[in-house]
Formats: sequence, C-alpha cells, structure tokens
Amino acid sequence: MNDLTILISCPDQVGLVTNITRILASHQLNIIAMREFVDEQNKAFFTRIACTGVFEETEKLKEKLLQNLPDEAEVTLITKKEKQIVVLVTKEYHCLAEILIKNQFKTLGANVKAVIGNYEELRDFTEKLGIPYFYVTHIDKDKSQFEKQVKEIINQFDADYLVLAKFMRILSSDFVKDYSGKIINIHHSFLPAFIGANPYRQAFERGVKIIGATAHFVTDNLDEGPIITQHTTHVDHNFGVKEMIRAGKEIEKKVLLEALELIFEDRVFVSGNKTIVFK
Amino acid sequence: MNDLTILISCPDQVGLVTNITRILASHQLNIIAMREFVDEQNKAFFTRIACTGVFEETEKLKEKLLQNLPDEAEVTLITKKEKQIVVLVTKEYHCLAEILIKNQFKTLGANVKAVIGNYEELRDFTEKLGIPYFYVTHIDKDKSQFEKQVKEIINQFDADYLVLAKFMRILSSDFVKDYSGKIINIHHSFLPAFIGANPYRQAFERGVKIIGATAHFVTDNLDEGPIITQHTTHVDHNFGVKEMIRAGKEIEKKVLLEALELIFEDRVFVSGNKTIVFK
Amino acid sequence: MNDLTILISCPDQVGLVTNITRILASHQLNIIAMREFVDEQNKAFFTRIACTGVFEETEKLKEKLLQNLPDEAEVTLITKKEKQIVVLVTKEYHCLAEILIKNQFKTLGANVKAVIGNYEELRDFTEKLGIPYFYVTHIDKDKSQFEKQVKEIINQFDADYLVLAKFMRILSSDFVKDYSGKIINIHHSFLPAFIGANPYRQAFERGVKIIGATAHFVTDNLDEGPIITQHTTHVDHNFGVKEMIRAGKEIEKKVLLEALELIFEDRVFVSGNKTIVFK
Amino acid sequence: MNDLTILISCPDQVGLVTNITRILASHQLNIIAMREFVDEQNKAFFTRIACTGVFEETEKLKEKLLQNLPDEAEVTLITKKEKQIVVLVTKEYHCLAEILIKNQFKTLGANVKAVIGNYEELRDFTEKLGIPYFYVTHIDKDKSQFEKQVKEIINQFDADYLVLAKFMRILSSDFVKDYSGKIINIHHSFLPAFIGANPYRQAFERGVKIIGATAHFVTDNLDEGPIITQHTTHVDHNFGVKEMIRAGKEIEKKVLLEALELIFEDRVFVSGNKTIVFK
Repeated sequence: MNDLTILISCPDQVGLVTNITRILASHQLNIIAMREFVDEQNKAFFTRIACTGVFEETEKLKEKLLQNLPDEAEVTLITKKEKQIVVLVTKEYHCLAEILIKNQFKTLGANVKAVIGNYEELRDFTEKLGIPYFYVTHIDKDKSQFEKQVKEIINQFDADYLVLAKFMRILSSDFVKDYSGKIINIHHSFLPAFIGANPYRQAFERGVKIIGATAHFVTDNLDEGPIITQHTTHVDHNFGVKEMIRAGKEIEKKVLLEALELIFEDRVFVSGNKTIVFK
Repeated sequence: MNDLTILISCPDQVGLVTNITRILASHQLNIIAMREFVDEQNKAFFTRIACTGVFEETEKLKEKLLQNLPDEAEVTLITKKEKQIVVLVTKEYHCLAEILIKNQFKTLGANVKAVIGNYEELRDFTEKLGIPYFYVTHIDKDKSQFEKQVKEIINQFDADYLVLAKFMRILSSDFVKDYSGKIINIHHSFLPAFIGANPYRQAFERGVKIIGATAHFVTDNLDEGPIITQHTTHVDHNFGVKEMIRAGKEIEKKVLLEALELIFEDRVFVSGNKTIVFK
Repeated sequence: MNDLTILISCPDQVGLVTNITRILASHQLNIIAMREFVDEQNKAFFTRIACTGVFEETEKLKEKLLQNLPDEAEVTLITKKEKQIVVLVTKEYHCLAEILIKNQFKTLGANVKAVIGNYEELRDFTEKLGIPYFYVTHIDKDKSQFEKQVKEIINQFDADYLVLAKFMRILSSDFVKDYSGKIINIHHSFLPAFIGANPYRQAFERGVKIIGATAHFVTDNLDEGPIITQHTTHVDHNFGVKEMIRAGKEIEKKVLLEALELIFEDRVFVSGNKTIVFK
Repeated sequence: MNDLTILISCPDQVGLVTNITRILASHQLNIIAMREFVDEQNKAFFTRIACTGVFEETEKLKEKLLQNLPDEAEVTLITKKEKQIVVLVTKEYHCLAEILIKNQFKTLGANVKAVIGNYEELRDFTEKLGIPYFYVTHIDKDKSQFEKQVKEIINQFDADYLVLAKFMRILSSDFVKDYSGKIINIHHSFLPAFIGANPYRQAFERGVKIIGATAHFVTDNLDEGPIITQHTTHVDHNFGVKEMIRAGKEIEKKVLLEALELIFEDRVFVSGNKTIVFK
C-alpha cells in the first residue's frame, strides 16, 4: 500500500469528477482527500486528489486519465519523494536561515542541495550547517554571463525548485523561461503596493499602518508573477525605516516558508497569473 | 436549471466518493464544488456537494443515495431557501444589532422572524427595525415555566435555528434536546479558558494579553458544545475590565456572525463534540 | 475635580516635557497618562496628557503653556464634551449602520447630528433610528453647486467632524480646505495598493491573497491623506469579485470605526502627511 | 553624549512625573521617550524613560531620584550593555534555533553564553553555531541534585536571564527563587486554557478552532507566572494532533522571541502577577 497524489488541470466540462473518480475506483485506489476548483473566468478545472492503493502502473493510470479527459488536460502523479531545491541569496540571512534550520531538522519538506550567493556574506553560516555554498559575483559581468554561471551550478543538482531567498538581482526572461513555474520569490512588500526598490522607505514615507510581504512565482514581469501567500503586520508612528525593515523580515520569512510548505506538498496550481491553493 | 446542495455523513468505507458521484452523474447533476473529510478518529465520512441540474425528483435521488451508502448514512438535500431564525437576547445590543442590520439589508443569509428577550431593554430597537419582540421574564418562575413560554413563541415561527445573541440564561437539558443541533450560542470567552461567569474579570485578573470569543452549538454541557468559530484580539495592561468588555464585544459579534454565515450556507457538520467546517 | 486632555504639538527642543509638566504641577493638575513622540524627520514634538484637577482657568493655563513653548506651538485643551458629527453616504449601508447603531446605544463616543446622502437609499433606515436625513443629488449640478448645498446642511450643525461613510463623490479642494483636518474617509482598499475605482476587481484580477481597507483624513490629493488605521483580511481563489466585496465591507467598517474611536478620544495627531496615534 | 534608560516603579502619588522630570532636567538629561502607567488596582506607578545626556554620575542620579520618590520606589538605570543569557532546552529545536540564529547574526539583542540540555539531541546543532553545550541528565537523580548541577553551570556565566526554550522539567521553588524575575518560559498553550501536559492533544480533543502560546515569567506556581506575550493561530478539522503541534511550534517561537525582544529592550515591568509592557 502506498500514497499517491494526483494533480489534474483541464478545461472545465460536465462530468469531470465522476469520470476521474470512476477511473480511480477501477484501479482500486481509495480517495483520502479530494479538492477541486472551477475557475469560472477561464473555464478551467483543477483537482488535487490524495489516494492510497497499490500502483505499480502509474504510467497506465496516467494514460487512462488522459484518454478520458479533455485534450489539453495536464495530469501529474506524485509518489512521495522529497523535493530537491537550490536557494539563491544575496546578503540577508533571515529567509535562508529559516530554510536551512528546517532542512537541518528534516521539517522543510524538501532537501536543500546548494546555496548560491552573489556575495560571500552567507557562506560561513551555510557551510556550518553542511550545505555547499557557491559564490557567483555579478560584478564586472553582463547579466547573461552571470546567469550562465548560476545555471551551470543549478544544473548540477536536478532541482525541483529554485528559491529566491532575498536574492536581489533581477533575472532575465531567458533565465525565467528555463525554470518556468519553478522559481519562487519573496517580495519585500505587500504587492501590488510599493513595487520596486526600497519598499520600506516608501512605506515609511507614506505613513502606512501596515506592512506586508508576498511570496510569488517568478515570471517575465518583475513583481508580477502569480501570488502564493501574503501576510501583513501592524506598524505605527514609532517605526522608522529600520524598525519597518526589522518587522518586515519577520513577515518575509513567515510568508516564504508558508509558500514553500504549500508547494512542497503539491497544493499550489498556477492558473494564468493567479494561483489556486488547496490548503 | 437549479442549485442543489447535498450533505452526506456516514461511516467511512472505500469507494464512497466514487459511489456518490456516479449516482449524481446518472441524475444529470453537474458538480460545481465538492468538499469531503474523513474523521479518522471516529471513522466517519462527511461531504458537501454543490450541484446544478434539473431535479424534480429530489426524493428519488435521496432514496437512491441512501440505498447505496452505509446503513447509518444521513443525507440532506437543500434547495436554495432562506433559513428562518429566532433570536434570544437579554440586555446587550451588540450581537442583536449586527444580526438585525444584516437582516434589514438582506445580507444575513437568513430571515429573522422574531426576537425573544428576558428583559425589555432591546424591544424599542428591535421594533424600530420592524421585527416582533416578545418579552418573557424569568423572574418569579421556575425554569420549566420560563422555557415553556419561550418555546410557545418559538414554535409559532417554524425556525430553522435559534440564535442566542448574548442570552444570559442557562437552558435546561430538555429545552436543548427539543432543538438539538439548532441552537447557536456566542460565548464571551476563548473557550476552554475562563468558563462560566465574568470571564473578562477573570481575564483581567490573570493579566492575559489576548481575549477571545467562541461560537458553538449548545448541548447539555454548559459551554461545552461543538465549537464553530473562534477569534482573539490583543489586549494590554491599559485594558481594565471595562475596556476588555468593550474589545470583547467587537470579537463576539464578529465570531457569531461568521458562525451564522457558515451555518446558513450549510457548511457546518457536527461530528461528536467537534465541527467540520467546509469554508 | 474634573478631567482635562491636553494636546500639544511644536518644534522639538530640549526640556519640553520638563517645562510642560512643571506648569501642570503649578496648576495643581495631576497627570494620569502622558504620551509623547518626537518626529525626528520633521523635528516635531507631540504630546497627549490626560490630567485631573480643578480648572476654572483653562484659558490662563493655555496661555501659560504657549508662553513657555516654542513659537509655533499648538495647544488644545479638551474637557469632556461629546463630539458632534455629520455623516455623508451614497448607497452602501455597512459603515453607516455601524455608526448609527453605536450612536443609538451611546457607545460611539460622538453624537450623530445628521446624515447627508446623494441618493435616497439610506433615508428609511436612518430615519428609523431617529436621525435626520438630507438628500442632495449631484445629478444635473456642477460640483460647486452640489457642494454648496451640502455645506449649507453641514453648517447648520456645528459638526466637529465629517465622516465619509462610503460617500462616493470626490470633494473639491475648496470643500476640503473649509473642513481641513476634519474629514475622515474610509477607502475601500489597502492604500497605496489599488488606488481609484473598482479596487476589488483590481484585487481579483491580480489574484491577491489579502485585501484591506484604509481610514484616512481627506486632503487635496485623492486617496493620499494621512492614514489613521488599516486592516487586512485573507482571501483565496474561491473569492470572486462579489465575495471580495463582501469581505471588504467587513474590514471597511472595522477600520473606519476604529479610526473614529481614536479620533473621538483625541488620540490622533497629523504631522505632515502622516498620523501619530497614541493608542 | 550617551543613552540612558530609566525604569522606576513605586506607589502612586500626585506629582510623580513632575518630580522625576525636574530631576532629570537638573542633570541636563534630555527625554527622548517616556512611557508611564498607573496600576489603579494596586495603586502603583511605573515609568520607562529613555534619555540622552552626559552622565558620569549615574549613582548620584539614582540616589537623588530615590530621595524624591516614595519609600518603596525601585529605580534602575540602564546604560546600553548587551544582556547575557543562558538557554535551557530538552529535545525540541524550534525555539532554540530561532534564538541561536539571531544570536549568530547579532540581532537578538542579547548574547547567548551557553545552552544547557537534559538530553543530547541539540548538542550538535548548538556547537555548530559555536555555543557551548552542557548536558545535565535528570535521570537517576532527585530534583535538587539535578538543579544543583544546572545552577553550577549557570553561575559560571553571570547571566541576566535564563530562557526556557521548551525545557520540559518543572523547576523547584528554590531554583525559581534564586533567579527570581529572571526566568522566561514559553508555554505550549494559550494560557489559561489547557494547563499542564499534552495541550495539543487536549486542544484536538476539544475541537478548538484556535491554538496559541504564552511567554511568561516563571514563578512558584506552574504555568501561572506573569504573562508577557501571547499569540494565537487558526486551526480547523483538518488538523490532527501532529498538525496542531507543527502549527503550535510556529506560534511558540514567535511568542517567545517577541517576549525576549521586549525584555532585552527593558520594556517589561512585573506588577503582582501581571506585566506592564511598554511597546
């Protein structure tokens, strides 16, 4: 007996749930938990099904599902296997530390293969926790050279996801395409407010009473990819820029780690520029 | 074409989802949203299914479902019809007002038929908003006399639910049994902390930094029925008992109204002494 | 014996607290609570002092304080007297209802003198609760005519504050100047995100996981006045525009009422385009 | 020029603020921020004053303050000097890791001198981050022997505070007295709910919709010391005991670290069995 998670997305039509559950039953699979959602705007259907059963024949099952679903259907069968990730950083420690601590104590739900930094600040800490650290400076290079080097390192590791844990370089369209749907970023702002540089200064100048952070998939459009999780926290007139940054860091790590947990448990679908999150 | 919500609870066994969805398909019903949960502790299965379709034959459908489900299965078919409620109050206005305002502007999801109070304080306000107010004092009566009078009023109205909106009398076992699963209370505390009288004074004396409120179904055990919703809010040393009560009232009305919304949308199952809430 | 609240703002300099407290002592005033803040950016000092004592001579006290403070100092002495407000509305009831309910039960901290609406939708409800309702349509008028009529009504009432409770007309610079620092608005968005029309549709299209609302003083710049309070609430992929609006209304009334409570207790200073809020 | 934080607690009487500020002025101290609170129940006055100035003579200043305040006054003058702490643990890593990470990156506001554990599980991680780890088993010892050994280690380090970061042994009255007001504990529950062992199982059995955690000073009464900070988080029917524990850990570390930050910035007074926290 074993666990299987099935993710299906396809154009919506009548009878999908019945169709799918009939096929699962014919394979002696027992449905433990099932979530589905219809995006009415895009007429798209999404389901996440957790099953138990005996399945030597996942390929046959996938084929059968595809035969009985609309043409554009995407079917993913996931047997429990830990995700592999590579983390990209610059100088700030707070998100990286949260990831590496959970990695160290086996509660991350993924396995950190490597950390890549465009500065050396975080090498010492990373290596103390037994993770290889790769330094690739962006200085005196054009972006394509820099990204080529980064890719060479990433590609050694067969990573399921790249996590930008306060990585402060903007990635090119080409880079993003190469890892489409696989790059997760933490944005130091409650998007769409305060897009771009220095959001905490912007927040301070505006006198806001709340700051927030946003975890999102990275797409071509800077700060505009599908949002996965967001949280906010209250600030007041006593907060200068420095205090806002400190409070912001606490929110950033909370938001990023929550997004990662959801992704590593295969709970997040992307639909256009939005996400569907089956919590 | 019409909307139908189906609620099913039964002992868990393999193939329930498949069984159910097959029957729905054979009745040409299209599943819009489906939520299910298996209570592993009690080996119980719960599902809420929202469908569209043509169904002159809800009775036949119900029968067919019951035939194909375990013996103890409960099946409820709900076509969109507004719930009817009676509200019981004592002297405090904050929960009642929130209910009557939403009732007035047709955003409550239910229809307030009457308000019953054991004091006269809230008559004027209730009647201003066009709702009949019934005064039944508990003074100089034993509990059974008091409750008999209350029941006589309730029973005029064919209410789906009784809402205790800061009703400060403890109801007898007999009364509770007569409306089993239909009485919702707002408890002025974050249960199970500070059970009983004067929770805000208890909270103040203990120096807590958070207070809360709990909406729950009423059962025989005072303050011990299945919890539907809870929220908390921060307090600090500046809060005396009076300020705690004021903050508590804001939480109480928020918690109660959220619980009512969930119940009126048929999203709440009771399983033993707990609830399953399909948000 | 009596209560007195003293508000002082002035350029910051050494010794202000000592100076002020010495003068209060010489008037036999006992300080119950004192809050102060120095805005380092603008070198400005703000204090709110709650005292008890006997003070037939508030004018003398004010004069003495002014003599001993920097030239630009502003000193306000407030003896407990209920604030008077006029509320402006359009069609949505949720903020108005919250205000009128608290007004009805004497827990608003202010007294609603009148409601002015540019539609008739809310007349019936307002009048049921005994508050005069004035209808001024904006149709077939230019803005200055419309505002002239509105002002004539306001000016009958000697209002301390104007509350825009989902009033959907943009006020002219001239109007705003006439009631400078006295107009409070609830903005249906977490400013500065989604400025302008249809923020919930914008939020829906962007796929945000949080929505919020902002209470602010109204200044010349639309949506850009000093922020008083903000709150957010989580949403997810199940929320369409309609559900976002419903959730948004709950946040809007919470944010507005919290702002009003702070203002009516004289806890809010404006400093440039920000507020200082002594909670 | 230098920073000085002054903490004063004493029986309340008229004129305290004036008295105190006059003395500070006579020492050429400039008040940057001042917070005060009167505990009406206990007729006690508390103030925290942040000043700048030149003060070779802190002893003289303290003496002068004491001479001019009621007899039982306590005056503490704090010049900026990092707090020293010792952390006690058992097997769970989450609170310890948060403390050691902030210690490593100098953002804790204190300096971790040592970690003492009654198991060996956390030695490896602690030493990786360069902090000495002392193992003292409680097995085959009576409590007084165990605590004697723990004290010997603590006393090597001249610690300002002992932090119980999920330390699962109950300390004796004698031990607690020796470090009176200096021991901070994180309690795995929203006190006063679910006191004692296995709170998450209790929470699960009760079907609560919220769990929380409490940081408090340790006193003789188990789980009954003055509460410093509390937070809660929502749970639902999908949470088994395991998921509640996981969610609980996130709250525990947040609550503990927030309490430590407040304590290390000298923002917390204890008054009877409550705290006054000047945020």
